[in-house]
Amino acid sequence: MSITHIEHIGIAVSSLEETIPFYEQLLGTKCYNVEEVKDQKVKTAFFMVGQTKIELLEPTDPEGPIGKFIASKGEGMHHIAFATTGIEDELQRVEANGVRLIDKSPRPGAEGLSIGFLHPKSTHGVLTEFCQDKNKK
Amino acid sequence: MSITHIEHIGIAVSSLEETIPFYEQLLGTKCYNVEEVKDQKVKTAFFMVGQTKIELLEPTDPEGPIGKFIASKGEGMHHIAFATTGIEDELQRVEANGVRLIDKSPRPGAEGLSIGFLHPKSTHGVLTEFCQDKNKK
Repeated sequence: MSITHIEHIGIAVSSLEETIPFYEQLLGTKCYNVEEVKDQKVKTAFFMVGQTKIELLEPTDPEGPIGKFIASKGEGMHHIAFATTGIEDELQRVEANGVRLIDKSPRPGAEGLSIGFLHPKSTHGVLTEFCQDKNKK
Repeated sequence: MSITHIEHIGIAVSSLEETIPFYEQLLGTKCYNVEEVKDQKVKTAFFMVGQTKIELLEPTDPEGPIGKFIASKGEGMHHIAFATTGIEDELQRVEANGVRLIDKSPRPGAEGLSIGFLHPKSTHGVLTEFCQDKNKK
């Protein structure tokens, strides 16, 4: 199969300043990267837990997607991202099976990944991302 | 560190009958186990994705924790479970660091695991579980 593992879990937080030290003690591992994703209006912080990253998402603008999410639902789990070895094919495959796509074709995400989101209305409420590290073979 | 990987992601769903085939096509892998956890008033279904399981949770009683979650928030991501090699020590460690525990000591969960939940009010909105497979060395 083309989906290999869970690449990351995205968690919406109000403040990286507060939640980075919190997750460092919770997980017993250091945050290894902080990165701003301007077009998503977020600052992200990453932790590695086995194969999977925890990606904290702090809004840089209350009108961005994470700002709006926190305003309506509060801090909490935001999305799940599955790593694939063929993102274009996977997006086409799930669309052919009736899943509505937010991204019809891959776009650049944090950490140099190619990413595409599936719409939570067609995935039983879970905002789902596919991603591929095209620098890896 | 004692936390080794993400053991599973718990997802609240209204109907396993609908969501098992959905996740089978989404992930390209078969559901390998369906199990009822009576004291939690849920029926669970599991998929393996790399190191991590997707655990679908269908309420068997609208007054149980998953029934109430779906009634107030709808279907969606419910909790994240971290695998540890020493659950008692981890629960004590995070409590000493100010995290409020739902389970002061481990209790039996699905798939024969020892589990303990942390309170989302002290984990920035994320219902967090620690778990250990005591059958594994």
